[in-house]
Amino acid sequence: MNVTVVELGPRDGLQNEPTPVSVADRLAFARALGRAGLTRIEAGAFVHPSRVPQMASSDEVCAALVAEPDLVARHVRFSALVPNLRGLERAIAAGLREVAVFPAASETFSHRNLNQSVDEALASARAVCVSAQGSGVRVRGYVSTAFGCPYEGQVPVTAVLRVCEALLAMGVFEIAISDTIGVAHPGQVRALIRELRAALPVTVLAMHFHDTRGTALANVLAALDAGIATFDACAGGLGGCPFAPGATGNLATEDLLYMLHGLGLAREIDLAAVVAASARLEPAIGHPLPSRYYRASQVR
Amino acid sequence: MNVTVVELGPRDGLQNEPTPVSVADRLAFARALGRAGLTRIEAGAFVHPSRVPQMASSDEVCAALVAEPDLVARHVRFSALVPNLRGLERAIAAGLREVAVFPAASETFSHRNLNQSVDEALASARAVCVSAQGSGVRVRGYVSTAFGCPYEGQVPVTAVLRVCEALLAMGVFEIAISDTIGVAHPGQVRALIRELRAALPVTVLAMHFHDTRGTALANVLAALDAGIATFDACAGGLGGCPFAPGATGNLATEDLLYMLHGLGLAREIDLAAVVAASARLEPAIGHPLPSRYYRASQVR
Repeated sequence: MNVTVVELGPRDGLQNEPTPVSVADRLAFARALGRAGLTRIEAGAFVHPSRVPQMASSDEVCAALVAEPDLVARHVRFSALVPNLRGLERAIAAGLREVAVFPAASETFSHRNLNQSVDEALASARAVCVSAQGSGVRVRGYVSTAFGCPYEGQVPVTAVLRVCEALLAMGVFEIAISDTIGVAHPGQVRALIRELRAALPVTVLAMHFHDTRGTALANVLAALDAGIATFDACAGGLGGCPFAPGATGNLATEDLLYMLHGLGLAREIDLAAVVAASARLEPAIGHPLPSRYYRASQVR
Repeated sequence: MNVTVVELGPRDGLQNEPTPVSVADRLAFARALGRAGLTRIEAGAFVHPSRVPQMASSDEVCAALVAEPDLVARHVRFSALVPNLRGLERAIAAGLREVAVFPAASETFSHRNLNQSVDEALASARAVCVSAQGSGVRVRGYVSTAFGCPYEGQVPVTAVLRVCEALLAMGVFEIAISDTIGVAHPGQVRALIRELRAALPVTVLAMHFHDTRGTALANVLAALDAGIATFDACAGGLGGCPFAPGATGNLATEDLLYMLHGLGLAREIDLAAVVAASARLEPAIGHPLPSRYYRASQVR
């Protein structure tokens, strides 16, 4: 089995950290992750900097990364979130050949987070897809709140499936089924994948877990057993301090790699080099990184 | 499937916390865990208080717990570690009907931690078993360092199996295969259980994981799938602060229960009541409890 790790630390991770990180530190972090052997890295978000100051200057960050000769030689694919056509234009201008759209499965979350209904968000995503494909740019689709919504609680499988089918119809190459608030557990993962596999090709599915309740790695194991081969993660477990309000840290790349390596998977990615990338970033984010493996590695 | 959670917070948890906790707080903690529906609780260790000051007054703690009318009515079974016959005498004097012995699979760890060879530790355990059974006291056996040793690294399956067979021969009712340093991953868990099942009845096996590298819940999932039905855990993830040197926190009872409940298992244990027990204890241990579920539950 060939497993792909999609590194989201420079985007989903830093975007959800309270302290904005300098362009130089973001660049150094993403470069180090690429050199560690991660071949897919989400490096920015083309959203308005007044809403998400952590992602300001994504243009500069992405443009520098795609021009980095050794990362080009390694075939590292950089991507960024784009909410609309204006975002897509900026992504293309920065030299990206891959972007991501992010509709939600839950109506209330979509309204509160994107200020759009699910159908409106899908229409925006469709416009991005059409234009991107015209420019030869690949599009990934996230399905937010696929395992639970902070406002609605449980999200019906039919709602997840509807967004997945709409994304596939607009030509995304991959769908990341996302546990935005970190409530998923293996029983739910197995049940949802069973339903999705009945309607969609399993190879198009990726899983995006947060470790809010400690279940992320167990969810990955359940998903691996169900045939999923692509997993999102953030170096250091960025995206939520375990001791801060609203803690919703992403699955840590280090923890994921430790488990995958033990299963004989993803051995081409250098775990020690990912730890080093996190260690170099840690002082800039103002709190200890929550990754368990990372913390154990820092004990002398 | 009927899953049993063995609560070790008052023993393995507090024993490995830097700050000793008062008898009153230890009693309140163990009582609250019993009232939460945990029916097996390790509450003390009859070792010398100069070596393990955290477990001083285990006599007083255990004697008070076994006399607690509502815990008696709930059939809560209390236990304690006993290294030798002197410890067993103290446990019996405190009114316990269950104790635990703890040989290691690794020779170097056994020498450094118990000051005995593996064979010497097994002889001590055998003496405890013979005497305990004469008094109608059940004995549990731990196999320390079953997944890895801090001095020797990987521990051969044959070494684990040898200790398991010796423990079974001396009449222990259960063997807790213990990942003392938190290195186990699901690939190793599957492989070890496969080997153990070929030689031992699976119903005698329990799994004891530490979450040092974030894999504990994934290990539980792998073990459940392999037919294991008994798991050790510590409320709050006690036993190692993630930000302290030597961090080796136990699998948190809260994280375990959240996953088990999602799988429809162990529903008779009240997760909110376990969280409340941890919350009441937290100020006494001097650092934030590392359980992910616990931390998420404390966010307002």
